[in-house]
Amino acid sequence: MTFCEELYAKAKHIWIANHKHPFVQGIGHGTLPKESFRHYMIQDYLYLIDYAKLFALGSVKATDVETMGKFGEILHSTLNVEMDLHRQYAKKFAISEEELENAQPASSTIAYTHYMLQVAQNGTLAELVAALLPCMWSYNEIGRELAKIPGALEHEFYGEWVEMYSSKEFGELSNWLKDLMNKLAIGKSEEERKKLEEIFLNTSRFEFLFWDMAYHGETWPEDIR
Amino acid sequence: MTFCEELYAKAKHIWIANHKHPFVQGIGHGTLPKESFRHYMIQDYLYLIDYAKLFALGSVKATDVETMGKFGEILHSTLNVEMDLHRQYAKKFAISEEELENAQPASSTIAYTHYMLQVAQNGTLAELVAALLPCMWSYNEIGRELAKIPGALEHEFYGEWVEMYSSKEFGELSNWLKDLMNKLAIGKSEEERKKLEEIFLNTSRFEFLFWDMAYHGETWPEDIR
Amino acid sequence: MTFCEELYAKAKHIWIANHKHPFVQGIGHGTLPKESFRHYMIQDYLYLIDYAKLFALGSVKATDVETMGKFGEILHSTLNVEMDLHRQYAKKFAISEEELENAQPASSTIAYTHYMLQVAQNGTLAELVAALLPCMWSYNEIGRELAKIPGALEHEFYGEWVEMYSSKEFGELSNWLKDLMNKLAIGKSEEERKKLEEIFLNTSRFEFLFWDMAYHGETWPEDIR
Amino acid sequence: MTFCEELYAKAKHIWIANHKHPFVQGIGHGTLPKESFRHYMIQDYLYLIDYAKLFALGSVKATDVETMGKFGEILHSTLNVEMDLHRQYAKKFAISEEELENAQPASSTIAYTHYMLQVAQNGTLAELVAALLPCMWSYNEIGRELAKIPGALEHEFYGEWVEMYSSKEFGELSNWLKDLMNKLAIGKSEEERKKLEEIFLNTSRFEFLFWDMAYHGETWPEDIR
Repeated sequence: MTFCEELYAKAKHIWIANHKHPFVQGIGHGTLPKESFRHYMIQDYLYLIDYAKLFALGSVKATDVETMGKFGEILHSTLNVEMDLHRQYAKKFAISEEELENAQPASSTIAYTHYMLQVAQNGTLAELVAALLPCMWSYNEIGRELAKIPGALEHEFYGEWVEMYSSKEFGELSNWLKDLMNKLAIGKSEEERKKLEEIFLNTSRFEFLFWDMAYHGETWPEDIR
Repeated sequence: MTFCEELYAKAKHIWIANHKHPFVQGIGHGTLPKESFRHYMIQDYLYLIDYAKLFALGSVKATDVETMGKFGEILHSTLNVEMDLHRQYAKKFAISEEELENAQPASSTIAYTHYMLQVAQNGTLAELVAALLPCMWSYNEIGRELAKIPGALEHEFYGEWVEMYSSKEFGELSNWLKDLMNKLAIGKSEEERKKLEEIFLNTSRFEFLFWDMAYHGETWPEDIR
Repeated sequence: MTFCEELYAKAKHIWIANHKHPFVQGIGHGTLPKESFRHYMIQDYLYLIDYAKLFALGSVKATDVETMGKFGEILHSTLNVEMDLHRQYAKKFAISEEELENAQPASSTIAYTHYMLQVAQNGTLAELVAALLPCMWSYNEIGRELAKIPGALEHEFYGEWVEMYSSKEFGELSNWLKDLMNKLAIGKSEEERKKLEEIFLNTSRFEFLFWDMAYHGETWPEDIR
Repeated sequence: MTFCEELYAKAKHIWIANHKHPFVQGIGHGTLPKESFRHYMIQDYLYLIDYAKLFALGSVKATDVETMGKFGEILHSTLNVEMDLHRQYAKKFAISEEELENAQPASSTIAYTHYMLQVAQNGTLAELVAALLPCMWSYNEIGRELAKIPGALEHEFYGEWVEMYSSKEFGELSNWLKDLMNKLAIGKSEEERKKLEEIFLNTSRFEFLFWDMAYHGETWPEDIR
């Protein structure tokens, strides 16, 4: 049993909840209100900026040039290619670049990104990877599952999303990160593995809160905005 | 108008919401269900551990020996005196030390502490202080307000809480931190002051989410625990 | 007077000492003992790994997507293109990849890189850029000066070095960093500008110690290796 | 064989060089020029400020309240008691508080402190402790050795230094840190132990460079000050 398989077994109930979430199912069946996806697109843009910083911190924490270089490559393509695709896609939902740049993060967006960033800055490379992994891995899993739903890949609004995360390229990226997690877990003490598991569970849970925030169009409670 | 007065003016609606929160009012009027306070005590214990780390980071970020020394003093008294008082107080609610040590943080606890820690590690001393300030300042304000309610200071269970946060010593600590904030804001550019304001607003908002989590006895949604 | 011009004026005596250093002059006149350059190549390889981490931290500390993206691009090209060129160039001096990977950093290499990394992790983006700048800027200045020496660009062993650092591309990179420094200095208080100046002076000085270490083939004093 | 014993065995030749250093021997035999000790006092004051930050980072990196509290206590006593003793002692050498506050760090002081701070911020608690340990442990060892030299403890100028570092209290502190190192090394992989060893060797070497800098009254080479 690889370390990632162990992590998966522990987080399975959370991943099932994520997969079943009406937001996720709504993407696959094309029934998600556009307003919810619009909110998601904006919050996801803010999320991606901080997620990219995790790749940068991966280069800082890595101890060999090859791993540093891979994180550097992903950082570069995220910021200089994917963010642009994201901005293009957002236009489909009438979200201007200005709206993206001026958007305010929801409490769940801040919570999730700052948890990851704090773990990454303060911890080991293994802890950083454990924080990164649920987003990448579960998006790939969700993408591949939803792609099986007839019409999901061809949907006018959500097809592009399903295609991106079910793609071979994204799958390879996700596999690279899983392999890295497995490699970094070797030789770790029981206490350290417990710590990695805790991080993986927490970011899996934050995935759920993020879907939920998006679905309900939440930012902060009304009185305290 | 001092910088802290500016911050207060911007955050006023949030501080009002915090003050009016049924958890806070319940402490003052002695009507809060003990079960809610019990949950609060446990989450607050976990919170305090990370809050203390902010003091430690204050010593790291400070550039003069006097400020370093003050943060060192607060760190020492928090960890070696107040945490112990906290453990004693917890016994009143039948919370054992073991339960405290093994408690799992709620999503709002993690969100709040990791936001602060990330701001502190990544930012300037001024940003760290802006993150720290709402908790200390608003607790002192709430303590002093609740102390005016007849019987609040003598309440069998909550009197001790009201006494601690309305005390002269706690007020002096809060004033020291406000003075430091004012001093650090001098000469900062408009952009930097905006950043400090944003942090202050966010941790004020996390105060609200924390009261709310405590009131409703929340940890994480049931399916993803 | 731009902020970079101010920095230059303060550091001028150090930059003159660097430029006059027998190692630097030896590259330009083709008189440097190959053994010294060999030692330099190895230490510079180790230096570059940590210097790249500064670019990664630039992405972490940047607050706009464009600056993040530029740092990401430089990180990627440093790790995935330039490090490879470095390894190729090293072969001219009979330095194998294995020797590069297993090399031990000299005290001056550790001192310089860890000073920069610490400033970058603990400080602001402006402080990070002030730490980065002397290496990039002075290499470009030195490259362009040495390129004027007849035969310097065509030298069998050192011509490649002179070409790289006097190139238009490297000049543009250096100019981008200077522009960023100027932009980030705007609105900074006198105290903060003093801090930036101190960092710029210190890394300018570490440049000197690095040339000196390379010239004398130093690592650590013999008794404590 | 404890992990500290392993570390000691690897670093023995460096520790012997440190012990034999004319600065160290000069303290013990009372023959050290006062001018050298004066320079040492000033640089050591600057060193201590950053060394204290390591204790603060120990509180940040620790995962149990007891270890956090111990680091908090040491931080507090260093900044609020020992720094003051240091300032008093400095007066014996006609060093005013003003001179201490305005002193410029030597290259070896910066190199040593920033290496430790970088390791501490970026690494694990075990790595932080490996960085801290040589200073504390070797000072205690040196103090106890020098105390055996007739007259060393009674020397008008250096007796106080020998007394401080050979004291029971300082020995207990050093032992606490060694015990912590041993405890943290348990369950670490071979690769991680290699890393800890490398850090321990490097800070042992920086101890040597620091004695040497003090002995020769060095700051930076003359041309680049």
